[in-house]
Amino acid sequence: MYEGKAKRLYETSEPSILWVTYKDQATAGNGAKKEAIAGKGQLNNQITSMIFRKLKEKDIPSHFIMEVSETDQLIEKVAMFDLEVVIRNVSAGSFSRRLGVDEGTELAFPVLEFYLKNDELNDPLINDDHVLALNLADQKEIDEIKRQAHNINNSLIEIYKEAGIRLIDFKLEFGKTAKEQIVLADEISPDTCRLWDEKTNNRLDKDVFRQDLGDIIPLYQEVLDRLTTDQKEK
Amino acid sequence: MYEGKAKRLYETSEPSILWVTYKDQATAGNGAKKEAIAGKGQLNNQITSMIFRKLKEKDIPSHFIMEVSETDQLIEKVAMFDLEVVIRNVSAGSFSRRLGVDEGTELAFPVLEFYLKNDELNDPLINDDHVLALNLADQKEIDEIKRQAHNINNSLIEIYKEAGIRLIDFKLEFGKTAKEQIVLADEISPDTCRLWDEKTNNRLDKDVFRQDLGDIIPLYQEVLDRLTTDQKEK
Repeated sequence: MYEGKAKRLYETSEPSILWVTYKDQATAGNGAKKEAIAGKGQLNNQITSMIFRKLKEKDIPSHFIMEVSETDQLIEKVAMFDLEVVIRNVSAGSFSRRLGVDEGTELAFPVLEFYLKNDELNDPLINDDHVLALNLADQKEIDEIKRQAHNINNSLIEIYKEAGIRLIDFKLEFGKTAKEQIVLADEISPDTCRLWDEKTNNRLDKDVFRQDLGDIIPLYQEVLDRLTTDQKEK
Repeated sequence: MYEGKAKRLYETSEPSILWVTYKDQATAGNGAKKEAIAGKGQLNNQITSMIFRKLKEKDIPSHFIMEVSETDQLIEKVAMFDLEVVIRNVSAGSFSRRLGVDEGTELAFPVLEFYLKNDELNDPLINDDHVLALNLADQKEIDEIKRQAHNINNSLIEIYKEAGIRLIDFKLEFGKTAKEQIVLADEISPDTCRLWDEKTNNRLDKDVFRQDLGDIIPLYQEVLDRLTTDQKEK
């Protein structure tokens, strides 16, 4: 049905349910750097599934229905907003580069950013007026997406903290269900979050791939293990 | 006291008053393209002075005090916000390029953008959260700057319309007076506005310099003449 950079989506016999396969592929710089990495799909599927389950326990709905195999999920079919929503707790990446703020600087409050989801245009940063002028969402939807994103940030900070990980920043995508409800969609994994070890500040995320700093598989496995151990201890 | 790309500022014997000289210099691409253009300083001084007077008639305050010579103004000394405020009525320039909207497309409403005033960083686009996180303005100041900018847009559209000119977009800067009042500052000229002839859509602004389309002096003179004629007819 649809193939993205990291996932493949398939229709199912149930019109409201999609089947997602997480691919063994890593990309960076909007696909400029691209590599097959064995085991990545399975780790991101398992991490995303676990995070969506933990968020559900905290009453945060998402499109996630269930994990059906090591690399596959069932999700609710939603109409996606052509928006990427980024929340930043600590300065890093493009925020540091664009605004001249040292990487690692704690921000005074969680900064929310919208990006236009458009590969050809390189996903440009946009403001609320752009969202409205380009008809990407109306004001009520913008307000609701922001509310949910900040709420998710609070929960994710807790979830990662229990795993000894600092949540630096992350990207979310949202969709609208058949019942016009706005829900969290896409994935939440070390591909879409900057995760730093709480003690060493070592990177446990895709920056290691972006910056050619080594093999990401052991790091993603570490994130999964820490999230899992934490769950078992409960 | 301070030399910018297009103007020089001097202290006066009066601490609250500055002397501005408009330079015969044109720059584009954040100074990448730079040229001395005889007569430009005098035109921009005269156009800006006229616009600030016309805005004052419409009860819109600014830092402008008076024109003191063909190239010079006296202005009130204000503490500048490190912000550029852009309002766009029609898609053009970086808006068209970044967001993939054809140049000339009428926008559904005037779109407001903030840019961080920082030459080294190339004046990046920022959103309201960035303004707050970087301590460029507080929420009350943001709201007031937006209110004034939209108000100024409405007046400028009228002023230019009477001169047979379409106001496509423009850049404003704001400052704070000793009495903590937020007022319009900097300049309003064909350097800072996209101005298209109402009938032909011919460019009457700095895009002609940016894109090497010809001599800007006759065009800037045309803008001044039309604004002046309009005033005389009144």
